[in-house]
Amino acid sequence: MTAQAGERITDHLPAADIALQGVLDALTDPVRRSIVRQLASADQEIACGAFDIDVTYSTRTHHFKVLRQAGVIHQHYEGTVKMNVLRREDLESAVPGLLDAIVAAANRESGPGRRRE
Amino acid sequence: MTAQAGERITDHLPAADIALQGVLDALTDPVRRSIVRQLASADQEIACGAFDIDVTYSTRTHHFKVLRQAGVIHQHYEGTVKMNVLRREDLESAVPGLLDAIVAAANRESGPGRRRE
Repeated sequence: MTAQAGERITDHLPAADIALQGVLDALTDPVRRSIVRQLASADQEIACGAFDIDVTYSTRTHHFKVLRQAGVIHQHYEGTVKMNVLRREDLESAVPGLLDAIVAAANRESGPGRRRE
Repeated sequence: MTAQAGERITDHLPAADIALQGVLDALTDPVRRSIVRQLASADQEIACGAFDIDVTYSTRTHHFKVLRQAGVIHQHYEGTVKMNVLRREDLESAVPGLLDAIVAAANRESGPGRRRE
């Protein structure tokens, strides 16, 4: 898919519709959890192509779509580059403490002296 | 399966092996999350047959096995009745804050004025 400058992404989940089941479905997958960890660590928006994940382009696109439609990330174009940002406040309002707990555990397990990845 | 008095359940996950992926896999299922909510709410052990879940016996047994092997619950027999208890301390040590965040969000979503079940 070639993006048009100014193209809009229209299927973001309204904040009021963010629900535990959707967020858990999104974050139970290790690749999607890695995307979220990288966003949480960077604390700024990241281009789709700049994530350190070892999957094909189409798989990558699928994972971003699941995260977007669950309300975990917001995406927008800058020119033809799709940028991603965590919806921290919306998640904290819908499922308080969940994002932080998952990111902290994932960071701990993947860090030095890790138990498992 | 008919339980023998004194039968032991031997496939509990060691506390040190409890990991984020296993806990998320266990708690992403709504029936298993309901079991955990009921245990958290009761704050005491509950017999397998006493949970309010609308699934067949064999499905119920499967869900308890997944929770047990992920380290979320501990099971033991009292006579021929299989009792369940949440492994709160082991979970808090392995994935701090995760159980509380999931139970709180699940309770909120299923309570009065709920957004969705």
